[in-house]
Amino acid sequence: MAEAPEEILSDTGVDNDTEAVSQRYKLLIAYDGSAFHGWQKQEPPDAPVLRTVQGVMHDALLRLFKQPINLVGASRTDSGVHAKGQVAHFEAVSRVPVERMAMAINSRLPEDIEVRQAEAVSPGFDSIRCAVTKQYTYTIHNIDERPLGLRHLVYHYRHTLDADLMNGAAQRLVGEHDFEGFSAAGHGRESTIRTIHRCEVKRDGGQVVITVEGNGFLWNMVRIIAGTLLEVGRGRFEPEHIDEILRTAERQLAGPTLPPHGLCLEWIKHEWTDQEERA
Amino acid sequence: MAEAPEEILSDTGVDNDTEAVSQRYKLLIAYDGSAFHGWQKQEPPDAPVLRTVQGVMHDALLRLFKQPINLVGASRTDSGVHAKGQVAHFEAVSRVPVERMAMAINSRLPEDIEVRQAEAVSPGFDSIRCAVTKQYTYTIHNIDERPLGLRHLVYHYRHTLDADLMNGAAQRLVGEHDFEGFSAAGHGRESTIRTIHRCEVKRDGGQVVITVEGNGFLWNMVRIIAGTLLEVGRGRFEPEHIDEILRTAERQLAGPTLPPHGLCLEWIKHEWTDQEERA
Repeated sequence: MAEAPEEILSDTGVDNDTEAVSQRYKLLIAYDGSAFHGWQKQEPPDAPVLRTVQGVMHDALLRLFKQPINLVGASRTDSGVHAKGQVAHFEAVSRVPVERMAMAINSRLPEDIEVRQAEAVSPGFDSIRCAVTKQYTYTIHNIDERPLGLRHLVYHYRHTLDADLMNGAAQRLVGEHDFEGFSAAGHGRESTIRTIHRCEVKRDGGQVVITVEGNGFLWNMVRIIAGTLLEVGRGRFEPEHIDEILRTAERQLAGPTLPPHGLCLEWIKHEWTDQEERA
Repeated sequence: MAEAPEEILSDTGVDNDTEAVSQRYKLLIAYDGSAFHGWQKQEPPDAPVLRTVQGVMHDALLRLFKQPINLVGASRTDSGVHAKGQVAHFEAVSRVPVERMAMAINSRLPEDIEVRQAEAVSPGFDSIRCAVTKQYTYTIHNIDERPLGLRHLVYHYRHTLDADLMNGAAQRLVGEHDFEGFSAAGHGRESTIRTIHRCEVKRDGGQVVITVEGNGFLWNMVRIIAGTLLEVGRGRFEPEHIDEILRTAERQLAGPTLPPHGLCLEWIKHEWTDQEERA
């Protein structure tokens, strides 16, 4: 191998050994959340390490790139929550061409998780800060028959729901509101103001699917929205009750937090410039 | 409580205490086979009892009826194989009205299995001997993306299959044939002649679904048919090769036995008279 004398590097300002350049990458990640304790890597002292999405991804990236990796995910999905479109970023000095990177990572991942796309991005990309819109779905299996093989992917609720009534009520959530009443305590966010761009409830055969798009979500927000719309659909809440929860911001006025396994992070849209942001 | 003197019973020939009459019942059972070691109850001496469909069902029936129960299933599905329409029969002296029996059994069953229908039948009904037609499906997840949450319900095969070519080849299986070449060794059946009424291959988005209906199936027969049609779909076998396997009855000429988790017993049709058969 030819050596690169120091003066050449300093002369041109370019490292000809491109393998040595650190590059930022954006990953699109899908997973079945059933066997994961959520996204976030947990390293409790003197406790068994829990299997998390970030932890399993981090292990695979370490084995592939053999260097310290800091993987930052856009959404810290809870235990049991699924994703078709989680987005994360990391930086690495990679010998793997970007078009083969997804496959290279996947060959080091178990069957319940997959990188669907890997992309080289400018340092201005940050999976959390550049996220502008996210879409979640919550799926209710709304027939008497048990979901059996799908039981980890849907929430089974037997009493027939009026999806049209739920959809009407859902429109009251659209817009910029204080969603404090639709969030779990201890969310630790400074502001509880969020904008919901779209909230739709549709029946598809035996399933009632709630789709929510917004610029951000508080802790458990989609699951509480789903639980509140369920109360509308079964006739316990009037649609107008939604306005009351928004007005008072009282969590106890809203419906229950539905279980995590009906929830899926569908996609996240990002906007960024080629310039690195310097805070 | 009024006592029923013996002379009244013998006088009318009818036991007024209807609870004391043993009755035969037909059950329609659905299950996710992922966590079951097949249908058949296994009680190996000096070995841990494996979790089987028959075993779990038997436990539930014992707890409900509190009497010895002999549950006979129409199809001994293998480990990992699913069912939407398994059929079984048993006899019991029941205090549970038949219209509430499915619910009563289900309340004693885990989440991955369900009785979909319970019916009082004449003693002439036998789930094995009265079965006249069965339908199975084999589902191939035929896109590059991993099936993730569906991975226990479909077989993932990435190379794109020509479903139309497979469907053409499948027609060569229809009719009465010796299916020895499409069966695993050690099936222990006297005859290997079976009639396939229908064999169809259809692409539905990313899935290729093989549907097979017949009057009976040899051990692993549907999984070997699926493996053989897969070889046609990927271009390794010509459709005419099917005729060769039927003609020679040579197992090694057929394709591989595809894994169990893509297989589902869809339904079983029975025909019986009200008279008990006496062999």
